[in-house]
Amino acid sequence: MSDPARGFGEREFRRRVVALQAAMGRAGFAALLLTTPADVFYVTGFLTRFWESPARPWFVIVPATGDPVAVIPSIGAALMGSTWVKDIRTWDAPQPGDDGVTLLAATLRDLLPARGRLGVPMGLETHLRMPLADYARVIELIAPRGVGDATEVVQRVREIKSEAEIAKIRATARAADAAFARVAEFAREGAPLEAVFRRFQGVLLEEGADWVSYVAGGAGPGGYGDVISPADARPLARGDVLMLDTGAVRDGYFCDFDRNWAIGVADDAARRAHGALFAATEAALAAVRPGMRAHDLHRVIVDALTAEGAVAGGGRLGHGLGITLTEWPSFTPQDSTELRAGMVLTIEPGVEIAPGRIMVHEENIVLRDSGAELLSTRAPAELPVLEG
Amino acid sequence: MSDPARGFGEREFRRRVVALQAAMGRAGFAALLLTTPADVFYVTGFLTRFWESPARPWFVIVPATGDPVAVIPSIGAALMGSTWVKDIRTWDAPQPGDDGVTLLAATLRDLLPARGRLGVPMGLETHLRMPLADYARVIELIAPRGVGDATEVVQRVREIKSEAEIAKIRATARAADAAFARVAEFAREGAPLEAVFRRFQGVLLEEGADWVSYVAGGAGPGGYGDVISPADARPLARGDVLMLDTGAVRDGYFCDFDRNWAIGVADDAARRAHGALFAATEAALAAVRPGMRAHDLHRVIVDALTAEGAVAGGGRLGHGLGITLTEWPSFTPQDSTELRAGMVLTIEPGVEIAPGRIMVHEENIVLRDSGAELLSTRAPAELPVLEG
Repeated sequence: MSDPARGFGEREFRRRVVALQAAMGRAGFAALLLTTPADVFYVTGFLTRFWESPARPWFVIVPATGDPVAVIPSIGAALMGSTWVKDIRTWDAPQPGDDGVTLLAATLRDLLPARGRLGVPMGLETHLRMPLADYARVIELIAPRGVGDATEVVQRVREIKSEAEIAKIRATARAADAAFARVAEFAREGAPLEAVFRRFQGVLLEEGADWVSYVAGGAGPGGYGDVISPADARPLARGDVLMLDTGAVRDGYFCDFDRNWAIGVADDAARRAHGALFAATEAALAAVRPGMRAHDLHRVIVDALTAEGAVAGGGRLGHGLGITLTEWPSFTPQDSTELRAGMVLTIEPGVEIAPGRIMVHEENIVLRDSGAELLSTRAPAELPVLEG
Repeated sequence: MSDPARGFGEREFRRRVVALQAAMGRAGFAALLLTTPADVFYVTGFLTRFWESPARPWFVIVPATGDPVAVIPSIGAALMGSTWVKDIRTWDAPQPGDDGVTLLAATLRDLLPARGRLGVPMGLETHLRMPLADYARVIELIAPRGVGDATEVVQRVREIKSEAEIAKIRATARAADAAFARVAEFAREGAPLEAVFRRFQGVLLEEGADWVSYVAGGAGPGGYGDVISPADARPLARGDVLMLDTGAVRDGYFCDFDRNWAIGVADDAARRAHGALFAATEAALAAVRPGMRAHDLHRVIVDALTAEGAVAGGGRLGHGLGITLTEWPSFTPQDSTELRAGMVLTIEPGVEIAPGRIMVHEENIVLRDSGAELLSTRAPAELPVLEG
């Protein structure tokens, strides 16, 4: 399989906007205001690492009908001009006193009728990427137009991936597969964990990632303590379990999965834990279907771990994936989001081996009418051992 | 010089908190609510790439007196527990319906007197990293306590770097210096720009970056079109000017500078443009002093470019630097922020060579009482030519 061509055709973006507009209509919004890198990229194709600078806000408005309008700092005009977006309004940012506020408000007044309601994502897993005081000022300036929560509008559309999007995520996962297959080259007894993290990122780039937005992991005797700490200088020791997890990015789409290895030798508890994680993942892969709720899949995973004699970890045991490292829904007891065909998901069981010692396992799938289709290459059933 | 030890001692964090509390006192805030990775890291030392997941909000409260309090998802308890923060309150996130709202509001009610005012950064170059609807609910729940804009409180403290922070930024800049010195290994005629970007990131990691949050650049005949677009597959051609810019990260601190090269041969216009950029940087390095305003340094750079017969680029010509790729102030005509000793800054002149063809140049400095001290190794005066 060759990697998909860069970017998307205009048809893909038009399909997305039409889907958003249909959902906006049902929810009673006359326009959507989008401010985050993911939402802006989804609608426009505007892809840049420049978001790393918090200096400037960027706005895209999806009106009830017609094409999206970008209200952005002039430094982005050339790149936005290379997308399918035609109506691009710019100001010189950062501008103390009026950093796009007047221009954004005027644009919203153009696009919304006086009784129209503006939709802004403001619910779970969202944030507003602009200064809060400027947002308040914009809302004042567009009165009597009202504002409401458009989280559902955006999430119900974005969570169903097109085949073009699925191909992107598959290509990113393939790069990570190839990198994981090379971990034996550099992860051995005596190698400091921070050197392992560094080299793993280099290998991800060599294998096709455009950039590596996320690498996490852990290493410790028979398991690790947590999965979000940065690497330290401690050398890998015989009997350690090493875990590496990556959110690499290719053409704007993430993968998010991990792998485990034993250094030199695997003890019984670690092998049993890996076996339980593998079995619970198998159970989830076999059971997941459109129409289930997110909490149903959480239950499948916990039951399978328990049947294996393992203690299920707390927290979520998988989630959505795509333009960001993690997307909704969450496989927790509380999340009742309906699983639907076209969702790209991670299945991520975790177990507690002992107090402060855990092991986790993760695969990426796309949900089809018939069930799970793997995007990551399935981990081996037995915990692999890296020999010095 | 060896790299500084990882992290900071508790004394550094206490100094930061005391400085924030003094500024809060002057501004009339009984507590600060911090939500962004940079602000949370600054106060606590909590360093993780897990912020890449937008799923969960994280909160740190700085009370008027006493130590900070963390209100965070339980998945972060172990890592936050390894910092100097002792009061850590957790919930299982993401939690539909109440994702930390009740816990955060109860904590704020504990820490603020009923007539106290909460400070939240809501001005230029800030955003609130939590769902907007949850923020509104928290503000309701803590009434009659009020809320106000704490942007100045945070920025006036964070912008003055300690010697320990300066050492971190210097170490990151050193890694980038070493990577820039190796660009001739892989940037040659025929190399696709996307391969150059990939390899450059790998070399940054090899030279000591923990991760590479930002790489940008451009390449084109005698100049490039913009500086924020991702790399494409076009091969470097003889006569191109190549620019690479990086925000690499080591131990939580960024560098941010760039370098230019001509591929095979440099034309006169490109050499003159590079000469003007070099001269304008020299002028800024010689002129910058505590007590100047940000717009004064902008004027120095523009005047120097004009004296060289160049056309100064629009937008800002430098900015602050530290925990994020860019920090305030901005060297623009509008920014009147006072430059003070201890600020880490980029000097970043840009010129327009022809319509749609630009060249930029960037160095990193720390401002001392006596003027600029370079943190990046000064670029060569003449545009270097990479021979095939």
